This record gives sequence, structure tokens and C-alpha cells, in this order.
Amino acid sequence: MSKVFFTVGPTQLYPEVQEFYKEAFERNIPSISHRSSDFSEVVKTTVEELQKLLNVPENFYFFFLSSGTECMERIIENLVAFKSTHFVNGYFAKRFNNIAIQLHRNVQTFNIPFGESFSFSDYIIDSDSEMICLTLNETSTGVAINPQEIVNLKKNNTDKLVVVDAVTAFPYYKLDFNYVDVAFFSVQKGFGMPAGLGVLIVNKKCLDKVHSVIKENKCTGSFNNFINLAEKAEKYQTSVTPNALSIYVLGRVANMLNNLDPAYINTTTEKKAKLIYDYFDTREDIHPFVNDINSRSKTTIVLKVLSDIENILKKLEYNDIIISKGYADFKQQHIRIGNFPMHKIPEVLNLLYLFKKI
Amino acid sequence: MSKVFFTVGPTQLYPEVQEFYKEAFERNIPSISHRSSDFSEVVKTTVEELQKLLNVPENFYFFFLSSGTECMERIIENLVAFKSTHFVNGYFAKRFNNIAIQLHRNVQTFNIPFGESFSFSDYIIDSDSEMICLTLNETSTGVAINPQEIVNLKKNNTDKLVVVDAVTAFPYYKLDFNYVDVAFFSVQKGFGMPAGLGVLIVNKKCLDKVHSVIKENKCTGSFNNFINLAEKAEKYQTSVTPNALSIYVLGRVANMLNNLDPAYINTTTEKKAKLIYDYFDTREDIHPFVNDINSRSKTTIVLKVLSDIENILKKLEYNDIIISKGYADFKQQHIRIGNFPMHKIPEVLNLLYLFKKI
Repeated sequence: MSKVFFTVGPTQLYPEVQEFYKEAFERNIPSISHRSSDFSEVVKTTVEELQKLLNVPENFYFFFLSSGTECMERIIENLVAFKSTHFVNGYFAKRFNNIAIQLHRNVQTFNIPFGESFSFSDYIIDSDSEMICLTLNETSTGVAINPQEIVNLKKNNTDKLVVVDAVTAFPYYKLDFNYVDVAFFSVQKGFGMPAGLGVLIVNKKCLDKVHSVIKENKCTGSFNNFINLAEKAEKYQTSVTPNALSIYVLGRVANMLNNLDPAYINTTTEKKAKLIYDYFDTREDIHPFVNDINSRSKTTIVLKVLSDIENILKKLEYNDIIISKGYADFKQQHIRIGNFPMHKIPEVLNLLYLFKKI
Repeated sequence: MSKVFFTVGPTQLYPEVQEFYKEAFERNIPSISHRSSDFSEVVKTTVEELQKLLNVPENFYFFFLSSGTECMERIIENLVAFKSTHFVNGYFAKRFNNIAIQLHRNVQTFNIPFGESFSFSDYIIDSDSEMICLTLNETSTGVAINPQEIVNLKKNNTDKLVVVDAVTAFPYYKLDFNYVDVAFFSVQKGFGMPAGLGVLIVNKKCLDKVHSVIKENKCTGSFNNFINLAEKAEKYQTSVTPNALSIYVLGRVANMLNNLDPAYINTTTEKKAKLIYDYFDTREDIHPFVNDINSRSKTTIVLKVLSDIENILKKLEYNDIIISKGYADFKQQHIRIGNFPMHKIPEVLNLLYLFKKI
């Protein structure tokens, strides 16, 4: 019996992914020049499939980087001259905040106890802040933001860029790109692929901001500065030789998801999440970490554990099921369950059946 | 008939590479956590195989990044506070130089007409320069440095770091790591793999230099700063979720090369290079770009073409052979032939046979 990874990412692959890799090898994707028209065709196809899947308008660039974390770094380097604002509700939001500090920018940081969610209208954002950074789905705490809140936040801060970390959110959570300037994700989560590719979606208007950051004599990075990335993206190219295999496979995965019934991802994700939360709401020893039902993530479910975590992991692994430990300081207190589109309802039922025996 | 890529990279894959990918999928490499002991075992194996293949001593870290160009950026960020020296004999050496400028460092640049090689002892390196950057094999011009010259350069500049771009050099060209502080390569050249992984080999002593760069209040980057990378490398981990598939496959490729007769790569690379140069030395319309025989690259052979380049490429492609165009300004003047370990002697003979008919 093969293993099932209910991890929050890297996670279970779509069963089709290995076939897509085989296809890429047959089509010589790894050997073709990244400056050839054949390669540009690959990029174009992937971009078009992602535009369709995530409802991204034409006025956004797709930059192909190496990870979600690289996306954070390039965003700060290119779009912040002096100050960014960070709503920190977990370790990944904190990482974004810390990257800004490491890059010698000032930060305005709003903290909240991990496991809780922000009500953005309660906070006063510094007038000199240039960017507001949000984590749509906090993988470390299992807190998700209601996308409608982001719309309101942008409406109240039209002079600032709104940047959304959507790493474990897409493709289930959707954004209204009329109210988002930048979003990014990596492929080893909801896209069920091997890691090694980060996708950065940037409103073309942001290029003006890059020029103003350069005018302030700030370093915007080197090969992956947005001027260079935009120039290449216009030609469906990349700044340097990229992970072409992954770009190809991402296009195939997005195409596969586009060919599903449009309601499929939503309804199954919500159904599986309900099964999981409903069950653990009945248990006291393994209980949802996020109390507010409306803030609970549908894609990365974090559970507070009062019993022996190693014993749980061992028993599941004995049954060929792998879940994630808690993140950082929560390693001895939490377990985390990934609930992405490739995880099937019968597999969730089996997971809960096993938990019932623990 | 399947295509043969005699390109300078991305290039032909080793025939075994697809099998290694299949093996990685079977072993769940894409799904395992990059913080698990299973993943550390993968990294450890790859590091050990590379240490053996490239004769890298224990006192060097292996950092796994996304490309050779990212290696350039991270080297400048972390190891140069004020000034680096660049020997520019082609477009990739120039890229390294320009990255230093983009990162707001001063540069001392030595230029030479492209197609010629440096005699390092002829140049006086600024006493306040902290690093000397060299391109062991210039992919854009087909000029290679004699590794012994690097030994002499380091002996004469013991107070400066010597950094070697070995992107298209390894595994054929060898370095004496007693006289090199940093070297890097990417896997889509002589390692015959899909792109998406850069390997940065850094003397552990360099960490002292990073601390002095930080003391000068310079930005050393964020998640891929060397302090963080070194801390993770000690545990055979990476800074963020990496291209784990490629790290695994690189270990398998290096293992395969380690199991060959130790002289095999050298003798066949030299034999094939001699076949190619000897033939084009007899032609006036397609002639080696590098005149000095001792400076001619064995791995990326650049030819100056007086006839119609598109016609050559078309006729070869009709016979399922792909070669590279010239780089940048040389696009209409040069063709380039990759000569890496996966290119077989009968394939080279067939390539030359086809050229004879052009």
C-alpha cells in the first residue's frame, strides 16, 4: 500500500503529476533552450491556465521564481523603499516581516495571539507605509482570512500596495484581483506538485513603484529585479534558466483543474474540512487550535493535542498515513492536516477512522 | 528517432536521469518534509557523492540554490562589503560583475577582447578588493582557464577570496579546493539534468567574512544569507523548501559518475573535443572562435560562422540534432557545441558527418 501524505506541504501529489513529468521528458522540455519559442509556448500555456483558474486579469505579470520565500524577498526589494506593514498571525507572516527587516526596511508590525484572526478595520496603518502584507492562509496556525476583508482593506488604503501570501490558499481560496496588487504561491501545496517553483503575480502598475524605489537609491536585487522580470515576462520568458519542468507541469495541473466542474474544488474542500473539524470538535484531547469557526482554515487544519503526539504520528504512519507536526514552537503541541484538492473523501474518512482508534 | 541536444545547456540529459526521477517518485521524495530525517539523508548522500566526484574537502559547505545566477548574487551579498575584482572574458563573467554593481558594490573590472584568455599575473589587483571572481569556462566565448593558473592567483592573493564560476566546467574541469574559496555550478550542463538547481560550494572559513560584511551594515540578503544556509547545511537541510527532486537526482547522477573508470570523463571529453576542433580547424567558413589552442574550452566549443547560420541549424535539426546559437551580440556570428560527458563519440562523429555535408 502506498503512503498518503495529509501534510500541509510538501504534500500528496496529484496522481497525474508523474505522468505529466513523463510527458515533459518525452517532449524534451528539460533540454530545450529557455530562450526558444518552444519554451515561450510552455510559459504562455501555463500563464493562460493560471489566469483562468485563479481569475487573474490581463494586467498582471506572472514571474516564475524558486519558492514562496523568494517571492517575499523580491517583493520587499522591489516594492518597498522605506516601510511595509505586516499583519502577523503566524510564522509565515512573521517570516515576511523579518525579511523586510533583513533587507533594511522599516516595518509596522501588528501582532495577534497565534490562533486568532485580525479584523483589519481595527488597526491604523501608518500613513508612510507603502505596502500591506497579509497571509491569506496561515499554514503555521490554521487561520484563514476572509477574502472579502481584503477587498475592504484595499478600499480603505488605495494609496498602498496590498500583497497577499496565498501559498497554501490557492486554488481553493480565491482573490478578487481588482483589490490585490501582488499575490504569490508555491506549487507543493494545493497544486500537488514537487517543490522548487514559486509563482509571483504582480499588477503591471507596480512597475512605477519599482522605478520610485530605484530613485531612492535602494537595492532592488539583481537578476530577479522586477524591471528585468517584467521585460522577460512580456516575451513569456524567465530571467535565468528556470525550473522548466515545473513550469510545464504546473500548466498541466492547472489545465486539469480548469477541466473539472467549477464547483468541485470548493464543495469537496469544504465537505472534507467539515468532516475533519466536526470530528475533532467532539474530542477534547485533539481539538481545533482555532476557536473562531469563521477563521478556521479549510486547507491547513491545525489541531492542539493534549496526548502523546509521537504516538499519534507513529500509529498513523503504521497505516501509511503521514500528517504534519506543529510548526516551530508548536512542534510538541500541535498536529496539522493538509486538506487540498488531491485529498479524496474516502481517504479523509479513513484518516478519521484511524484517529477514532487512537 | 529522438533528438540529440549538443547544446551548451540546458543540454542532453543522461539517459539514466528519467529513471532517477521515476525512482524519486517511488520513494516519495517530492512529498516528504524538508525538515525530516529522510530528507537530510538525501542531502547527505548528494553532498558525499559531490565531495568525492569534485574532490571537495570536508571544510566546505554545500548550499543548494535555484541557479548559477542566484549563486553569483548570494556570493556578492554575503562576502563583499565594498569591492570585488572581476576578470571579464565573456558574458557570464560580465553578469557576475554587473550583479556586484546592481547590489551597490564597487568593482574592479579587467576586460579582454572576447575569445581571448587572461594571464592573471599581468594584472594588479586593488589592495582593497575583497574577492576575485573568475569564470573557469566561459560558455559565451568558449574560453577556458587553466586550473593551475587559479592556484598561482590564490598564492599571490592570500588575503582575498577566490571565487570560481564552474557552471559549464564541472565535472570535466577539476579545481584544487586548497586554492579556491567558493565555487558554483548548475545541473543542466555537465550534470545532464533538468534545470532548477544551483550548487554553491563555500569554504567554512568564509563565515567570518560574512560577519564582517554584516558589521559594515551591508545587506546580506534574507532567507539565503550564508549564516542561515550554513546553519541548515550543518544539519543537511536547506533554508526553505527546495527542489528536492533535483537534489535527489543530482546525488544519483554523481554516484553514477563516481562509479565510472576515473579516467573516463577526462579521456572521452578530450577525445571528442579534439575530433571537433580538428575538423573545424580545417574549415574556413566555420572556424573555432578561440585562436589560442591552450585557451579553448573542452566542454563548450564556440565556432565563428561566415555562412548562413539559420541554414546550418535547420539542416542539423532536420537530422534531429540541436546545437546552440551564439550568445547575445554573437547570435548572428557564432554557433556553440556542448561537449559534456553524456555526449557519445558516435554521436559526435555523426554530428561532424552532417557538418561535412553542409
